[in-house]
This record gives sequence, C-alpha cells and structure tokens, in this order.
Amino acid sequence: MQRKSLAVILAAGDATRMKSSMSKVLHPVGNLPIITHVTAAAKAAGIERVALVVGRDAEKVAEAGARAGLECTSVLQSERKGTGHAVLMARDVIAEGFDDVIVLYGDAPLIAPQSLGDAIEARRNGADMVVLGFTAADPHGYGRMIVENGELTAIVEEKEATEEQRKIDFCNGGIITMDGNEAIALLEAIGNDNAKGEYYLTDVVSICRARGGRVIALEAPETDMMGCNTRAELAALEAEWQTRKRREVMLSGVTLSDPSTVYFSHDTEIGNDVLIEPNVWFGPGVTVGEGAVIHAFSHLEGAKVGAGAAVGPFARLRPGADLGEKSKVGNFCEVKKAEIGAGAKVNHLTYIGDAVIGAKANIGAGTITCNYDGVNKYLTEIGAGAFIGSNSSLVAPVKIGDGAYIGSGSVITKAVEADALALSRVTQENYPGKASVLRARAEARKAAKNTKK
Amino acid sequence: MQRKSLAVILAAGDATRMKSSMSKVLHPVGNLPIITHVTAAAKAAGIERVALVVGRDAEKVAEAGARAGLECTSVLQSERKGTGHAVLMARDVIAEGFDDVIVLYGDAPLIAPQSLGDAIEARRNGADMVVLGFTAADPHGYGRMIVENGELTAIVEEKEATEEQRKIDFCNGGIITMDGNEAIALLEAIGNDNAKGEYYLTDVVSICRARGGRVIALEAPETDMMGCNTRAELAALEAEWQTRKRREVMLSGVTLSDPSTVYFSHDTEIGNDVLIEPNVWFGPGVTVGEGAVIHAFSHLEGAKVGAGAAVGPFARLRPGADLGEKSKVGNFCEVKKAEIGAGAKVNHLTYIGDAVIGAKANIGAGTITCNYDGVNKYLTEIGAGAFIGSNSSLVAPVKIGDGAYIGSGSVITKAVEADALALSRVTQENYPGKASVLRARAEARKAAKNTKK
Amino acid sequence: MQRKSLAVILAAGDATRMKSSMSKVLHPVGNLPIITHVTAAAKAAGIERVALVVGRDAEKVAEAGARAGLECTSVLQSERKGTGHAVLMARDVIAEGFDDVIVLYGDAPLIAPQSLGDAIEARRNGADMVVLGFTAADPHGYGRMIVENGELTAIVEEKEATEEQRKIDFCNGGIITMDGNEAIALLEAIGNDNAKGEYYLTDVVSICRARGGRVIALEAPETDMMGCNTRAELAALEAEWQTRKRREVMLSGVTLSDPSTVYFSHDTEIGNDVLIEPNVWFGPGVTVGEGAVIHAFSHLEGAKVGAGAAVGPFARLRPGADLGEKSKVGNFCEVKKAEIGAGAKVNHLTYIGDAVIGAKANIGAGTITCNYDGVNKYLTEIGAGAFIGSNSSLVAPVKIGDGAYIGSGSVITKAVEADALALSRVTQENYPGKASVLRARAEARKAAKNTKK
Repeated sequence: MQRKSLAVILAAGDATRMKSSMSKVLHPVGNLPIITHVTAAAKAAGIERVALVVGRDAEKVAEAGARAGLECTSVLQSERKGTGHAVLMARDVIAEGFDDVIVLYGDAPLIAPQSLGDAIEARRNGADMVVLGFTAADPHGYGRMIVENGELTAIVEEKEATEEQRKIDFCNGGIITMDGNEAIALLEAIGNDNAKGEYYLTDVVSICRARGGRVIALEAPETDMMGCNTRAELAALEAEWQTRKRREVMLSGVTLSDPSTVYFSHDTEIGNDVLIEPNVWFGPGVTVGEGAVIHAFSHLEGAKVGAGAAVGPFARLRPGADLGEKSKVGNFCEVKKAEIGAGAKVNHLTYIGDAVIGAKANIGAGTITCNYDGVNKYLTEIGAGAFIGSNSSLVAPVKIGDGAYIGSGSVITKAVEADALALSRVTQENYPGKASVLRARAEARKAAKNTKK
Repeated sequence: MQRKSLAVILAAGDATRMKSSMSKVLHPVGNLPIITHVTAAAKAAGIERVALVVGRDAEKVAEAGARAGLECTSVLQSERKGTGHAVLMARDVIAEGFDDVIVLYGDAPLIAPQSLGDAIEARRNGADMVVLGFTAADPHGYGRMIVENGELTAIVEEKEATEEQRKIDFCNGGIITMDGNEAIALLEAIGNDNAKGEYYLTDVVSICRARGGRVIALEAPETDMMGCNTRAELAALEAEWQTRKRREVMLSGVTLSDPSTVYFSHDTEIGNDVLIEPNVWFGPGVTVGEGAVIHAFSHLEGAKVGAGAAVGPFARLRPGADLGEKSKVGNFCEVKKAEIGAGAKVNHLTYIGDAVIGAKANIGAGTITCNYDGVNKYLTEIGAGAFIGSNSSLVAPVKIGDGAYIGSGSVITKAVEADALALSRVTQENYPGKASVLRARAEARKAAKNTKK
Repeated sequence: MQRKSLAVILAAGDATRMKSSMSKVLHPVGNLPIITHVTAAAKAAGIERVALVVGRDAEKVAEAGARAGLECTSVLQSERKGTGHAVLMARDVIAEGFDDVIVLYGDAPLIAPQSLGDAIEARRNGADMVVLGFTAADPHGYGRMIVENGELTAIVEEKEATEEQRKIDFCNGGIITMDGNEAIALLEAIGNDNAKGEYYLTDVVSICRARGGRVIALEAPETDMMGCNTRAELAALEAEWQTRKRREVMLSGVTLSDPSTVYFSHDTEIGNDVLIEPNVWFGPGVTVGEGAVIHAFSHLEGAKVGAGAAVGPFARLRPGADLGEKSKVGNFCEVKKAEIGAGAKVNHLTYIGDAVIGAKANIGAGTITCNYDGVNKYLTEIGAGAFIGSNSSLVAPVKIGDGAYIGSGSVITKAVEADALALSRVTQENYPGKASVLRARAEARKAAKNTKK
C-alpha cells in the first residue's frame, strides 16, 4: 500500500552571506532553482505533498517549489526561533494526517531520492524515526551520531562531545523522518532552554526515544548534504551537480573529451556515441541526437540537434534552433528559431533567425537573415538545395525557391523562384593608381594631425 | 647486439560498457587512436614487430596499430577464454623466433617506452621473465606482487590474499616480458582449472618459476597502467595524457596561463617563449613558432603559426592555414588553406579560404573570400600591402595587386591591378522623415497582429 | 609612531629553467608582473622604501617594481655568492637607517601584506629578528624551524637534520625581518665556510642569537611562499592567485557558475549580484556594474560594463569599450573604444570601433564600422534610437541622427539626419532557370578538372 508522506522543506533562510537580492533557494544549479531540485527529489521518492516554510521571496519560492509537479503549500515563517520552531510553522499541513513527515532543507539540492526512499522504507519497517547521516571527510563542527545496537541513541554537538566522541566521523545530516501522527506532539515537546534560546529540531531524537520510540540512522553520501550559504558554496553545489551529470552522461555512451569543461542543464538529453569536445555549454532544453559532434566552444540553449549533425566550434544555438540530420552549423554562426534541413550547411559567420532552410541548402559565409525591422520579426524561407552566396542579406519576409542561387554580396528583398539566379550587384570600377593617391592623402592627414599636437 | 623483440598486444576487448559503435582501442587520446599510442610506445622501446590480437573492427584496429610504423600482424581472437588463451592466438608470429615476447594491452595508451625498454634490458641481463608492477594508491582489487630476495615469487589475487598480503601496495600491471623461445611452452602450460574456466596469463609466473626460471618485477608509475572500459575511463586517460603533455610543453619554455584548459594533440609543436592563454584547442598537425601568442578561445587544426604571430582571441585556424611571421589573425576569423603573409592582419569577423595574402596586407572587418560556387573552390590572391575595405566580398578566382585598395562593402569579381582603387558602390540615398513613417507603419502592423490574436 | 621599514627584494635570479628571454620576476600573474605583486605587498604592509637587488633585465625589473608606488632603489648583483651576499648588495640603502630590514623574494608574489605587517609588529614588540615559516604539506627538502620556549633556536637543513627533526613540518620560508641598525653587522658576519662556499642568509639567525638577540618565528600559509623557477611553477602561481581572487569575488556577492574557468586580472572590479558564466577572461582594467550578466566565452579588456548590461556569449570587449546600463553586446561582437548607450543593442556579428552609439539604438547583425583607412582612424556617431539594418557598412567619419533608419546591406558614407531613412541599394534582378545553368557549368568544370588529373 502506498504510504502518504509529507515533506516539510525549510526554505526561509536569510542567507545574508550570499549578498544576493534574491533568496538563496532560488539560485540555480544545473539551470534549475535549488528549491526545485529539492521538491523534485521528494517527488522522485514517492512523496506527493510538500509544505514549504518560506520567508524571503515567498511567492517565487512557492512557484519554483511547485515546478516539480507535486502539491505544495507555503507557510510563512515570520519569526526565527530555530529549526524546530520552523517545522512547526507547517502545523496545519502536518495535521492533515500523514504516515511520515520528512524534514528537508531548501538549500540542499543534491539529496538523492534513494536516500529519502530508504528513510520511508525504514519507517514502513517499524522505525519510529529515521535520521540521515553521512561520513564526514572532516567531522569538525558537525553533530556526531551515536549509534548503539542499531539505534541512534544521541546526536552530540561538537562542543559537548567527549574526546572519544569527537573521533566519530558519522555526522548528523539533519534530514529527519518521523511518524506523521506523532510529529506535532514531538515538535511541540522541543524546548528552548539553551544558550541561544532556540528550538532545535535535533531534539526530537531524544524526545522520541524518551517516549519509547526506536530511532535509527541511515547513511547518505556527504555530498548529498551540501547546502548553500555563500556564493562559494553555490559554486561547489554546481560543481558537484555537474560532476554527477557528466558521469551519468559518459556512462550512457557519450564521449566528453574533458568532462570538467562541459556544462549541462537539468534537462539536457544526449544521444549515444555523441562526441562533445571541451568547453561546451548546454542551457536548458537541449537534445542532441545519436552520433552528433559538438565541437569546442559551443553554446546551446533550447535547441534540438539531429542525429549525425555537427555543431561548432564557436557555434551558438538559441531557443528554437532545430538542426536536421547531418546538418552543420559552424564557426561564428548563430541560429535562433529556425529549422535547418537535413544535410544543410551553415558554416561561417552567419546569423539565421526566424527561418526555414531546406535540406542540403548551402548558406555562404557572412549571410544574414534580416528578420527584424525594429518592431516586428519576419520569416525567411530557403528551399532545398539552394545556394546563398557569401555576405548576402536576406530581407525578411522573403522566400527563396529550391535550387535557387544567390550571388555573393546580394541584398535580397523579393522572392526568388526555384532554380533562378538572383543578384543585386553594382559593376566594379577600377581606378588605376588611385590607391597610391589615397594613401598619400591619408598619410598627409596623419602628418597634419601630428603637427597640430 | 640489437635484440629481436615481439610485442603481443591484446586488442580484442568487447568493451560493452563503452556503449560505443566502435572498438575501444580506436577511440582517440590526444587525437591519436589508443592502439596507436601502444604500438608507438613499443616502437620507441626498440620493438620492431607486433602481433595484434584483434576482435571487433579488426581491419581498422590493424590499420591504426600500423600507423606507428612497425610491422604489425593481426590475428583474430575468435573465442574469449582469458588472457593466456588470447596471447596464444599469436602463436604463429611468436614461432618466427624472438629474443623476447612482451604482452601489452591495446586499451592502455600511457605505457612509457622507458618501462618497456627496462623490461627488455632486464631480460638481456639474465631475467627469464619480467613483470611490470605499480604502487597502487588504492590496491584494493589488484593482484599483489610478492617479491622475495629480488625475485617475484607470486602474484596473489585480492580474494586469495592473506590480511598481511593485502597490505602490500605493489600490484600487478599485467605487462609480462618472457623469453621468446620459451613463450609458447609457457603459454601452453597455462590451465583453466578455476572458477571461470579461463586461461589466465598471470599463471606464466608460477610456470616459469616451476621450470627453474628467475622472474623479476619492475615498477612503473600507476598512471602508465590506466586502461579504458568506460567513457569515464576514456576521459581519465585523456586527462592524464594532457597533463603529461602540458608539463612537457611548459618545461620546454612555453607559458600556459592555465594549463588545465589547453588541449594538445599528439603531434603539436610549440616554440620557445610562446604564450598560450586559457582555453585553446590544438587539433592534429599544428606547429607554433617562437614568441607567438595564442589568445584565449582559439581553435587550431593542421595550421602553421609563424614566429611572433598573434592568434585570437576567438580565432579558428583550419588545415592549411599558414601564418607568416608577426602576422595577426584576430577575433571571429576563420582561415582555411591560406597563406597569410608576414605582418599581414586579418583582425575581425573574416573568412579567408583558399587564398594567398601578401606581406603587410590589411584585411578589413567582415571580409569574405567567396571561394565556393557550390561545386568548385577557387583561389583569391591578395598582393603585399593591399588594403581590403571592411565588409568586402572577394569572388574567387580573383587577383588583387600589391598596394591595391578595395572600398568598403565592395563585391570584387574582377582583377585589381597594383596600387589601383576598386569600388562597387551605389550612391547613398537619404529620405528625410522616412524612418518615422516606417516605424509608424511597423507599429501599426504589430498592433494589427496583436488584435488578431 | 610610524616605523621606517625597508624591504630588500632579491630579484636577480637567473632562472635558466624558465627557458625565457625575460627575467622570471617580469612574468605576469593576474596580468601584473610578479615583482610588482611583491612591492605592492610591501607597500600594503606599510613599507615605503625598497631596495631591489637586480640582475637580468635590470631596468625593466626596476620599472615594474616601482609600479606599486613606493620608492625603489635598484642595486645590481654582479656576482652570485649566495643570498646573504645578495642582500649585502643593498648596503648603501640599508645604511640610510631603518627600524626594520625585511628580506623578500622577487619571484614569490603571493606573500600576504598581513604576514609582513605581523613581522614588523613583532619587531615593534621587542623581537630582534622575525623569520616567517610555514607548515609544509611535504616538508622534505626544506629547512626545519626549531622553536623552543617561543624562540626560534635554529633552522636545520634537511641533510643535517636528525630523524626526530625531520618529523617537524614547520619550515623556513626565508623571509627574515631584522633590526635595521644591526642589519649590516649581521650580514657581514655571515661566513662562507661550507660545501658550496656561499653566504647563506639563514645564518643571520644563529648570528643574531649569538649576539644575545631574541629571534622568533611567525607562521604564514604555505602558498604565500610559492616561488617560480619553471613555467610549471609559474602556472601554479597563477592558479593559486586566481583561486584567491575568485573566492574573494564570490564572497562579495558575485555568482561564478564555474569559478575555475573565470580569469581575473589584478584590478578587475565586479559589482554585486553579477552573474558570470563559465569561461570568461578579464584582462586588465575591467569594471562590471551591479546586476550585469557576463555570458560564457567572453573576453574583456580595458572595458566598463554598466549595471544590468549583458555581455556575450562570445563577446569581445577591447580597451575603451564603455557599455551603458542595460545595454547588450552579444555573440561574435567586438567593441573597441566606443560608448554603447543605455539600452542599446549590438547583438550579432558586429564590429564597433571608434564610435559613440546613442541610447536604445539597435545595431543589426553583421554591421561594421569602417573606422580605418589604412592610416588613420575615424569616428562613427549613431544617434539614440537609431536602427542600423543588418550587414551595413558605416564608413567613418560619419554621423547618423537620432531615430534614423539604415536599410540592410547599405554602405553609408554620408551623414544621415535624424529620423531619415538611408539606403544604398541596387535593384535585385532574378534570372529564371539560370541557377541550373550555373550549376551544370560548374559541374562540367569539375569533371574537366578531374579528367586532367
């Protein structure tokens, strides 16, 4: 039987050390807000309901949290009295009745669904409470998890730990799963009789045990627990997220020449036997078909790359770029909202925006689709097998037929029928000896200018 | 006296975990197939003859192996019965008679010629068999090398090792050099009485010792032994190869601002006092002359850069680009199959293909050589000291004389003699107030479109 | 009372292992010569006077040292007789009379002003001599600092150290601060009765103690001591410098998606809430205003980016680029010595050099300012709200009024008044069927060529 679990996500942190005009949980990792990673992990673990404890940017945080597609209720944390108090802000949602209540952190996007699922599974198997811990590379500063006979008997803070306890490297990750029916009672039992006068969530462990409950600890990787209080930590989160994604992509059969220089987004999809050279940036919404090659220094966003296509080096694909099979978009080319037909070539110094280009068309170096009149944007249509001479300007809306040929340097403002040649060219005039004259004049001007100084 | 040594290279691996449509030994490292690195190392160690034990992509593997310039015989491994059985596939070649038979791995391209040479030297000095080992950072899973009184007495697999033996971090690298005249007998003596029913090459150690032979172990760096079973391991090989090459280049007197972002190929040659900024990619066949500067974000392949020249940032040099001394190829410029004369400048947004440019010529921003008519390619010749105005199109075949001057925006289709001025320009017409009219019209169109929605 | 301190900086090293045509202390780190980092650290620590002991490239070294803005006297080191002897070269400067003389190394640019300040402070508090040490990750090869009862009693070289002493990981950093009035006497007391016959500066420690002085040791981070003898060490210096700068920038409230791929210069200034994507290079003299976005693959040098502006991807800003608030400079665009008005857009494949562009102007794709006639450079002025059609060439000097409209593909050589439309366009001619004819002809030519071969 499916359990009914609730995630209470603490997302109200001030994060003054971020020095940001925006809540830290809205900063992106893998081009997805941190908070959305957390709700997505909850959803992937089978959790269908979330209470978001929000503060700053409440509305945006709620919206980002809901992006993962589960039911999110926001509750505002008006006062800061510690984590235990913060979780209680969700009292009304908890009171709806759940098998499990699991407390998560809105600034820790790397938590694996697997770990959450394990905690819920342990609850199903009879544990009254489950605390996620991790083996710390450097345990200094963390609460140590004291495990005896399979039970978590205490979490001892650094400064209260004995020398022997300090040697323990199994530390508290803060993610606690409790019995949904007991949750409010447990949380209400937390006191604030301590130096800071705060309500610490961790206290539920001893409260649960005092009430005869069995508390167990599960282990998750340390990196799953990484949070975000500074931009340096944000960068560390991004780095770890990218490392995981790169590994996953490589193991699926993709070659990354230097994985550390390829940046993916949360939704990037790469087909089999694709080669990605160093220094490639994938913004949101990119899919790359089998056997394609993405050369170095390419920047893709909202683009579809067909099987066997070649992109870059130095290519920029913007949203709506749709490259057909075995097509090529080469150096210093930008493609936006345009279909590039199968086998078509856009190889050099070209801007293609708002266009449909037929199969095997060849777009010469320096071609520009003039799609914008300062107010509106218009479509350029280029037929299959057409040849656009270099340095041409195609003033949209304009249609160029199949197999048509545009002379180099033309400005095309009218339709060109299939297999026609179009030119807009002035006769070249040569003036013998005139270059020498111009040069002498320019030199004189320079000399005059220098004299004046 | 020169010894006659044979390398038997196992290159038949299936490598299903690579999820590749191509044999893993054909994947490139430093833009050279992995297998070619292995045969090249053998050749550099003085080995002149190779038996390639091949499976998948047999023909291509044989071809890539032979690229190193030694005599390669391919033998097909039809069945998979373990490494000992695989080496015996080369029986006919071994039977030709060699002083030494050395077993190498086709997926391990980082083996140093020095290590192979040392093994052969040890054979010359009387060792009956030489096994290459390495000190493992994490020995878990490797066979441990038991060395007593200078002899390798056993290789103990992880699961059969005593607790004491597991503490040994000197591990089996698998590269075994044996007496060429004994090799077939040793290999035939290997049995398959084990869990998997396979013939393990490692067994030749005990067989040799049982026959009274002296087996010794030599140490090589752990990274020399890196193999390739997944794309992640392929990336690790590439990273290690690049690290070595970067170090070698730096120690020869080249500045790499950030070595970790400069990618070399196996044959890249960089002159003294060259400065290479971050993010530079060298494909195969590049040489850079003394004192040149390669700015950030440059991509070079099959190109020659003269002494004191400046490339980039954002430059792409393709095969056949030949930059003269102190010439410059700047941002968003592509050069293909073209000579750029000494001191000439190609600085901005330019495509130069199939061209010869004279010394000190100045190519304006946005210049395009229109070298292709959709079927054939043609030559553009530009004389010394010529000045090509910005945004010009040079329709090849075309010849522009020394010191000639091309007006901006011209389309040049006919020869221009030395020191002449050439233009193809239309008189500019101004229409006062017309911009306001156009703008109003465009706004109206936009409004109409929005109304329709 | 302000103390009078002198820094003696040893900057005469030969550095043959650099294989450079230039002194190692002139190589840049963060785009500032190494020696300037050292003098700048001295200045920041309150030191106003420097004696530079120079050898190779004496004049350039002196000039680079003085760039930090303190009084530098160069003294030439003609012979190489050890560090003690080298410091004595500055005898005349030392003799001017100082409270403290502090010996620094011209090839170690990462020394923190804090550490120098601490040493001077310790002098003020009564120490006769202060030696900076560091805790070595791998102490092998370094002199070990023997500290007893708060005094540095000896510095023991590796080869003379007992097994017990070798376990000490507190090592000699070589930076010694002494009593300015005693300095000459101490230095003259150094002998050369050792294997190499050299005068070792380190000997001043025992000399000072023998004269009843109190010598103490202070600790600095190991990275502060990094020097430069090879290009690999130069790269390591650059990497450490960048790591520090990146951290400082992030903690000030700037997002670096991948800090390891963003390169700063010594004087880069980045405003709050700026986002910098991977692979961005900041040359000297760049400031970026609040909330700006610098997209991947951008290269900035001597440029000012206004608040909320967007740069890149693939943008190059050269010296004198001055981008107004919320302006945009997009892909494959180069801007040099030009003001881009607030909200103006230069989005695609454009070269803007020597120009003033008004607010909200829109510069179409492929626009080129033709600012150079081969000898002189001229200004292009574009009014507010002007629209420059794609692929236009603006031949400077030229002025385009506010709200003017330039048709695509125009070559503009004369002024355009406000709100006027300007065109230089040839009527397009279509030739039905002619493309097929041209294609057939080209194919025939190709066939003929192939036949000849």
